[in-house]
Amino acid sequence: MSDVTAYAPATLANLGPGYDVLGLALTGLGDRVVAAHGEPGAGVTLDGVLNDAGRLPRTAGANTAAVAATLALQALEHPADLRLTLHKGTPHGAGLGSSAASAVAGALAAATLALGGHLNDAGHRRLLDACVEAERVAAGVPHADNVAPALLGGVVLIRRYNPLEILPLPAPPDLRVVVATPGFSFSSREAREVLPEQVRLSNATSNSANLGALVAGFFRGDLELIGRALMDDAIVEPIRAAMIPGYRRVKRAALDAGALGVSIAGAGPSCFALTGSDRDATRIALAMETAWAAEGVTARAHVGAIDTQGARLVGGLAG
Amino acid sequence: MSDVTAYAPATLANLGPGYDVLGLALTGLGDRVVAAHGEPGAGVTLDGVLNDAGRLPRTAGANTAAVAATLALQALEHPADLRLTLHKGTPHGAGLGSSAASAVAGALAAATLALGGHLNDAGHRRLLDACVEAERVAAGVPHADNVAPALLGGVVLIRRYNPLEILPLPAPPDLRVVVATPGFSFSSREAREVLPEQVRLSNATSNSANLGALVAGFFRGDLELIGRALMDDAIVEPIRAAMIPGYRRVKRAALDAGALGVSIAGAGPSCFALTGSDRDATRIALAMETAWAAEGVTARAHVGAIDTQGARLVGGLAG
Repeated sequence: MSDVTAYAPATLANLGPGYDVLGLALTGLGDRVVAAHGEPGAGVTLDGVLNDAGRLPRTAGANTAAVAATLALQALEHPADLRLTLHKGTPHGAGLGSSAASAVAGALAAATLALGGHLNDAGHRRLLDACVEAERVAAGVPHADNVAPALLGGVVLIRRYNPLEILPLPAPPDLRVVVATPGFSFSSREAREVLPEQVRLSNATSNSANLGALVAGFFRGDLELIGRALMDDAIVEPIRAAMIPGYRRVKRAALDAGALGVSIAGAGPSCFALTGSDRDATRIALAMETAWAAEGVTARAHVGAIDTQGARLVGGLAG
Repeated sequence: MSDVTAYAPATLANLGPGYDVLGLALTGLGDRVVAAHGEPGAGVTLDGVLNDAGRLPRTAGANTAAVAATLALQALEHPADLRLTLHKGTPHGAGLGSSAASAVAGALAAATLALGGHLNDAGHRRLLDACVEAERVAAGVPHADNVAPALLGGVVLIRRYNPLEILPLPAPPDLRVVVATPGFSFSSREAREVLPEQVRLSNATSNSANLGALVAGFFRGDLELIGRALMDDAIVEPIRAAMIPGYRRVKRAALDAGALGVSIAGAGPSCFALTGSDRDATRIALAMETAWAAEGVTARAHVGAIDTQGARLVGGLAG
């Protein structure tokens, strides 16, 4: 094996009342990392980053793909000298788990090449832990609600940290996710800092109930319930909505176009709408782009479904 | 039809992180209300309350059975003159939904006799609304997490109020619930007042995650997951536990005896333990009684399962 290419999908986290605990993997957007053997003693190095408009760090210690690769090799107790190349397919600073996609693709590519083949379950678990830790580089706090769905695919609930417990939820096959990404961005660190440290118990209770309803909706495959519960966020969306110019208009346009639910993708500024058919999704995508244009913002809408595969090898296995 | 007897089960609400939003109906404990035709013009009157050691109000305006019956007849637009007799089977002031069982049994008996037969779905829905309102008499706030499972049976999630939306969850048939009730009591109003108005966002997030995990556990029939998630309550149990003398010891004893999870029943002071077999339940019941005895408290343990029927007519239909 001379090189390995791994793919990891973009992800939606902070799903309305699912702030910090619920995430899903998206089809059609994701990062690829190519890992190749490097100079002896060089450790993990970053050869290049493509398709990021020059915005991401080029040093291995600051780029989550290389950070996660290094942490994964440490966790697997299998040091290796590897050269990584990151091909971005996830928009950066958009709220779509860009750093998680890079981390997971980097860790999977590096671990697969270093170990010479597929990972077992224990190895996968170590990759997950390494990627959660790598997220600290991007977000300031270790969090799993992007890296877990990016690695495992589907919809996941993070029940707890220390130790991390991830619960996969059923992914309704007919769910369509329309993600509209405006041409401005902000860091998830900033978006996190606007949230209060304390919230009303009544709002916490309401969000719990709706998180429970989201989980029930995924188990039932009840897209209307998922949409209703998504919209009942008493804590995070009201605050972050104010940070995203045009959000209210875009949300209204998506609902008017038939969306079952609308909320903010991750920490924003992308927003997303849910629906049950490709035809509706196309109409909603257009409505969201048009609404943002009316605010003077160029936005691009992507229509996807839930990526149930998660991170995977896409090249170089036969090397 | 000269009289009708309705039964409604005791209920467990505030299930760990499910504070205010999750409840289940219990087998083996519940209230019965007998409704008979009364004097023309008298409205709903309360003939008597049995088996309550004289502790409950005897006036129709203050007893939830009669309050709920009156509100139900109003909601059904079917005024009637009815005499009610309440037979208590749910311990009062124990955290087992005593007022809800009375309300639901009272409303169902009254509505059935007034209408002369079974209720349709719309009628059932009006009963539910009337019982939620009747709970205001007992708890000071309208709440649905006892009356909904008492009426509908099974496990229910209250997604929201105004309008009320109830989601039934699957009830694992092998789940056993051990409820240990000490010989002291306090009002749910007092227990509510010790809770803070504000909570840390991180604790709210943790409780949301675990409420989601409880819901997932009920869908999967995964009793171990239900037990783990029940125990991860960062908000309510730590505060209310301090109000219940002996609680820590009883909880420890139940876990040592093999319980999958332990928490406070409703607002307390009963506590409950979950397990998957009758044999374990018997052992846990004994351990909980013994632990409370070591604290100088006489407690009585009841072993039940989830009552999937909910409120029902148990006599007088053929009148």
